[in-house]
Amino acid sequence: MKTTATANANIAVIKYWGRRNDELVLPYNNSISFTMDELQTKTTVEFVDGLKADELILDGKVATEKELLRVQNFLDIIRTKIGTKKHAKVVSKNSFAKSAGLASSAAAFAALAKAATKAAGMDFEDKQLSMLARRGSGSASRSIHGGAVEWLAGKREDGEDCYAIQLSKPNDWPELRNVIAISSEHEKKVGSAAGMKFSVQNSALFKSRLESVEERAAKVREAIKKRDFGTMARSIMQESNNMHAVMLDSWPPLIYLNEVSFRVIDAIIDLNSRHSKEVAAYTFDAGPNAHIYTTNRHEKEVKEILDEINGVQKTIIAKVGEGAKINSDHLF
Amino acid sequence: MKTTATANANIAVIKYWGRRNDELVLPYNNSISFTMDELQTKTTVEFVDGLKADELILDGKVATEKELLRVQNFLDIIRTKIGTKKHAKVVSKNSFAKSAGLASSAAAFAALAKAATKAAGMDFEDKQLSMLARRGSGSASRSIHGGAVEWLAGKREDGEDCYAIQLSKPNDWPELRNVIAISSEHEKKVGSAAGMKFSVQNSALFKSRLESVEERAAKVREAIKKRDFGTMARSIMQESNNMHAVMLDSWPPLIYLNEVSFRVIDAIIDLNSRHSKEVAAYTFDAGPNAHIYTTNRHEKEVKEILDEINGVQKTIIAKVGEGAKINSDHLF
Repeated sequence: MKTTATANANIAVIKYWGRRNDELVLPYNNSISFTMDELQTKTTVEFVDGLKADELILDGKVATEKELLRVQNFLDIIRTKIGTKKHAKVVSKNSFAKSAGLASSAAAFAALAKAATKAAGMDFEDKQLSMLARRGSGSASRSIHGGAVEWLAGKREDGEDCYAIQLSKPNDWPELRNVIAISSEHEKKVGSAAGMKFSVQNSALFKSRLESVEERAAKVREAIKKRDFGTMARSIMQESNNMHAVMLDSWPPLIYLNEVSFRVIDAIIDLNSRHSKEVAAYTFDAGPNAHIYTTNRHEKEVKEILDEINGVQKTIIAKVGEGAKINSDHLF
Repeated sequence: MKTTATANANIAVIKYWGRRNDELVLPYNNSISFTMDELQTKTTVEFVDGLKADELILDGKVATEKELLRVQNFLDIIRTKIGTKKHAKVVSKNSFAKSAGLASSAAAFAALAKAATKAAGMDFEDKQLSMLARRGSGSASRSIHGGAVEWLAGKREDGEDCYAIQLSKPNDWPELRNVIAISSEHEKKVGSAAGMKFSVQNSALFKSRLESVEERAAKVREAIKKRDFGTMARSIMQESNNMHAVMLDSWPPLIYLNEVSFRVIDAIIDLNSRHSKEVAAYTFDAGPNAHIYTTNRHEKEVKEILDEINGVQKTIIAKVGEGAKINSDHLF
């Protein structure tokens, strides 16, 4: 059955960096994110009788071999589960540029997990979907849910306790915003999966990061419960700094931030100091683009500041968004 | 008695970042450097009867209040030791721009310690001189010696076991070079003393740095003993990354590197990978200028690579240099 699903990207405030198991995509630490609208992937999947191989169209173009291989591997997991050898046609569309640190793979594999399981005739609950999406891209496990989401690292070797849970619903914190400042749409030189391996193996600071991350996560959870932006702002920024510090301490050193990123960091610290409290908080994934969490009261001010920074090419304002869901409007 | 001394800067390969005692300038960890020629300070000191206050001329200009205060505080230590109230005239000249991460305060306080003690009629041994210079600027304790130098952190509260020792003589490793790539001569926004306080107090990774630094130091000591560049190159680079990672993890985040620094890092990693071994190693102090350690075999190649990097304003090649010494050619 031809099935279409949409999913939104999520922007982590407590980061996923480092895997205890590569094949099953099991992380070392819990991570927390907000699923944000504006950054959406829509995917249509159909398992077709007699198709000789999986077909993948991304944003109107035939996918590269590397992209296709990743989707094939993911579909293999589903095929194994239901005992079929049928290949699938997959068409996917992003509302934003891929691979520029805009968490595109999170939305992509959440949408694919949702669409492909339904297309294969399976009716997965969110927990199962999250575990499946995780296999495609770790952070995709979070995009199954809307709102504030925590991906539990779990302890089991088989990963059956490693999935995302919803901390609060999309409408629970309607004032929250993420102002995204894009300074580069280039693909990153070292992908996240390779990068985090360098950190786990070669960063002398990685273990210490794992010891301090739960303290920041606790602050963020408390802030989400109370919808208190001030409580989480500093922890968000320190968490981003901490991850990028570990990246720099890796071998070879991983440098995802650029000079525009550093200008944004300075500008946000200045903004908060003018307000004598934290009204905005920056966070950076494995890329130079800035995600500035703030509230509706300050979104205009934040956007204006970002738009004036030399090197910022455009800004996007996102609100807390929905989880992955079925859509009746197919792409083919 | 009017006395003149010269001292060279030193470029640390195992870094000094973080003090266990601010007033006595006692560091948390041992640091290792090479004293390099080309970056020299010359200082003439005279304690003058009837002079109402200390006078300080730096590079031909009357010093700022901040600069004067630092020198006054230093001279006070000497005055207390010998029980005099006489003020001094101090004239000092640098062969390079101050405060741009070129370790100018190391050369400055090493030369001042050497000249001022002699001018005050004291005959200090190197160990005592190193402890005195340390009070002016931590890294100045290392510039008392030429060659490869280790500053022992010590354990005593009074700092009497906290001084630098010579690991090898200036002529022991004549092939060693430091190619300096200057990309900015601006003063840094946050001085080292303030910056390291932020790291000690607010970096979750600082403690972990202290746990890993001795491993890198051991490699460097071994390499110095064997004059084996390859053995120490990787450790030098990882040590620099590690310190700048801790800086980034501090609050507020300390960002001393700029985009030119990151281009240099990439270029040196590329160079080494073309040679399939480490022929050069970068290190950065609390500033954006790159110090590339290499050997005479590769100095020309390294200089050419650096000269071609966008944003590199000039390059200087330094060799291993002498320690602080008395000079008969006075500045006034």
